[in-house]
Amino acid sequence: MGPGPINADPRVLRAMSAGLIGQFDPAMTTYMSQTQELYRRVFQTRNEHTLLIDGTARAGIEAALFSLITPGDRVLVPIFGRFGGLLREICERAGAEVHVREIPWGTVFRPEQIAEAIAQTRPALVALVHGDTSTTMMQPLDGLREICDRYGALLYTDVTASLGGNPFDQDALGVDAATAGLQKCLGGPSGSAPAAFSPAAVERIERRHSVEAGLRDPGQYASEHRIRSNYFDLGMIFDYWGATRLNHHTEATSMLYAAHECARIIVTEGLAETIERHRVHGAAMHAGVLGLGLRDFGEAQHRMNNVVAVHIPEGVNGDAVRADMLNDFAIEIGTSFGPLHGKVWRIGTMGYNARRDTVLSTLAALESVLVRHGVSVPRSGGVEAALDSYRAAGNPA
Amino acid sequence: MGPGPINADPRVLRAMSAGLIGQFDPAMTTYMSQTQELYRRVFQTRNEHTLLIDGTARAGIEAALFSLITPGDRVLVPIFGRFGGLLREICERAGAEVHVREIPWGTVFRPEQIAEAIAQTRPALVALVHGDTSTTMMQPLDGLREICDRYGALLYTDVTASLGGNPFDQDALGVDAATAGLQKCLGGPSGSAPAAFSPAAVERIERRHSVEAGLRDPGQYASEHRIRSNYFDLGMIFDYWGATRLNHHTEATSMLYAAHECARIIVTEGLAETIERHRVHGAAMHAGVLGLGLRDFGEAQHRMNNVVAVHIPEGVNGDAVRADMLNDFAIEIGTSFGPLHGKVWRIGTMGYNARRDTVLSTLAALESVLVRHGVSVPRSGGVEAALDSYRAAGNPA
Repeated sequence: MGPGPINADPRVLRAMSAGLIGQFDPAMTTYMSQTQELYRRVFQTRNEHTLLIDGTARAGIEAALFSLITPGDRVLVPIFGRFGGLLREICERAGAEVHVREIPWGTVFRPEQIAEAIAQTRPALVALVHGDTSTTMMQPLDGLREICDRYGALLYTDVTASLGGNPFDQDALGVDAATAGLQKCLGGPSGSAPAAFSPAAVERIERRHSVEAGLRDPGQYASEHRIRSNYFDLGMIFDYWGATRLNHHTEATSMLYAAHECARIIVTEGLAETIERHRVHGAAMHAGVLGLGLRDFGEAQHRMNNVVAVHIPEGVNGDAVRADMLNDFAIEIGTSFGPLHGKVWRIGTMGYNARRDTVLSTLAALESVLVRHGVSVPRSGGVEAALDSYRAAGNPA
Repeated sequence: MGPGPINADPRVLRAMSAGLIGQFDPAMTTYMSQTQELYRRVFQTRNEHTLLIDGTARAGIEAALFSLITPGDRVLVPIFGRFGGLLREICERAGAEVHVREIPWGTVFRPEQIAEAIAQTRPALVALVHGDTSTTMMQPLDGLREICDRYGALLYTDVTASLGGNPFDQDALGVDAATAGLQKCLGGPSGSAPAAFSPAAVERIERRHSVEAGLRDPGQYASEHRIRSNYFDLGMIFDYWGATRLNHHTEATSMLYAAHECARIIVTEGLAETIERHRVHGAAMHAGVLGLGLRDFGEAQHRMNNVVAVHIPEGVNGDAVRADMLNDFAIEIGTSFGPLHGKVWRIGTMGYNARRDTVLSTLAALESVLVRHGVSVPRSGGVEAALDSYRAAGNPA
């Protein structure tokens, strides 16, 4: 019940134990195409270039940024948590001239702040996190497309923590590039990064298209303006996933099965229903921690559905509480990074763990551990508040 | 039965369906440490910095080369197949001044050729493939350490195709950095890259050590000489796998389980026994294709145990034969890349597929398909030659 990775859906684990098939076996390429179509529905996009990056969520981020950024490009990174800092440093490593704007952790940007920063910096790319688990905040993206269009900037966002558990409509928002991971609301293991790219993003990437030596005729071997990474060269990855099926890496087949199953489960449940499930169980957990007398962190109206942060009560050893939760109840909760390390606990309700039983068990266990640590806690305050929240939501299972 | 990926060992597939655990759960970090110890035995090394890169074999290559190469470094890449070309282009993208030496596909370098090239180019790093599946050749590495030492060069080798199926003793050979993948002789799925780094390699990497913003105190945030990739910054990955357990990516837990099981199976069978199994079944397949009247490609004495290439007989449509093998017998065999595309078939016997039944079934099926395609083939010539080869090896199961 931490901020992710979380318990994977058993169906996803089972999917990974299917036998492997050759990477250009028609069964395999069909499976790849199906996966693309499933993720178009999860990202809510028609983008042809919707695919998986073989690596963790961070690999997806790096593939997008290294492929979109030509060294020297100006990039604007609005930072409201740790993962904004990660975007900054990946942009720096990609050779960008990086401009950042930072606001206090626990808040999000107002559109006019971003508009002003874009007007000042005239970036080729705006890169920002959608939901930053370090603070549990979700940055509203409405209106950013229009602002970016005014200055011809592309818009990238990291939806690792938010996708599947919070509203995200890539095409309606006009997001050019979005990358995710399986280990949050998608209910799978870390190790595959679904990603989707708009035609404008693809156009910018294809300008630097190159073909690996030994695959086609040597004339197509480009040596200038190549993307700084081979593994994350999206032009090559597009060739691998697209009609040409040009060899690049060897697709991580078991992770493809996992990614496929994660999306299939969501599409079967219904994307709107999946998001609503996250909202309901997240709200119950939020009500529950407040019912235990804990104080939530950050602007509550901008909290992601799937994770809540609470201040660790004064005088309480946060790590000792976490250890007791893990050792006595086999329930993991998190702390956070940097300025929030040891200051907050983060409790997740996402993917397979966004359930009534997990929410109530976590609150009951937390109450008992807090009591043992000398915290004055209303008896059953967490469980009762969560049950009230469930009742108000029509008492879902 | 292609050049890899191959059918994974069922035990590996089963291992992936185990439930996930938190990334800093003591059970997880213990499991990471066990995995490191298992791979020390597979690489035959005492290198403390033995770990997994989260991505395919190519991710391991890029992590090693991006972390070992400072832009401007001279690097020597001896090329004897497609994957040497890949090393070249990754080194170029890492910003190296790359010097290559190329020899005809189907041959390997003599040590004096490499010594001469090192003397001429004085590289900071020599990067070469151990076994290149595109040609099936395995480059002998003996003596290269001494040659590299003469000029202070580090030695990197890609053992993706060879490890576990052919002799490779990292410490005895004095290899500074070696990276692999699971999908060949290790008998697992693509998606995790075991890698091992000598103290000299670690020393070079640690010179450019940096810490991600938001993780520790800001004073340690290095902005100069940083490695060009965050995802592949081995200094950070060492911090994640080492005693400090500093957060980097979210470890791909299911792939860790797979990698762990691949190595556990090999260590249980015995590394020497596993290699011998590859030798015996590879020799039977080699004998078998010769027994079918096919002509092998490349210098037979330098062939890897686990894959054999044969010339496609004149007038035969190689892809049609491959399609019949796949559609009628569910057996995949490969062709190759670049100059060998459509010229050779490549048949693998590796990992879980290095077995008597798979070898004999493949040869029987191939005979039947060749006959259908009008090739004059000695009746049962493949199976009988393989059986003779098995008898000469003491008739193993």
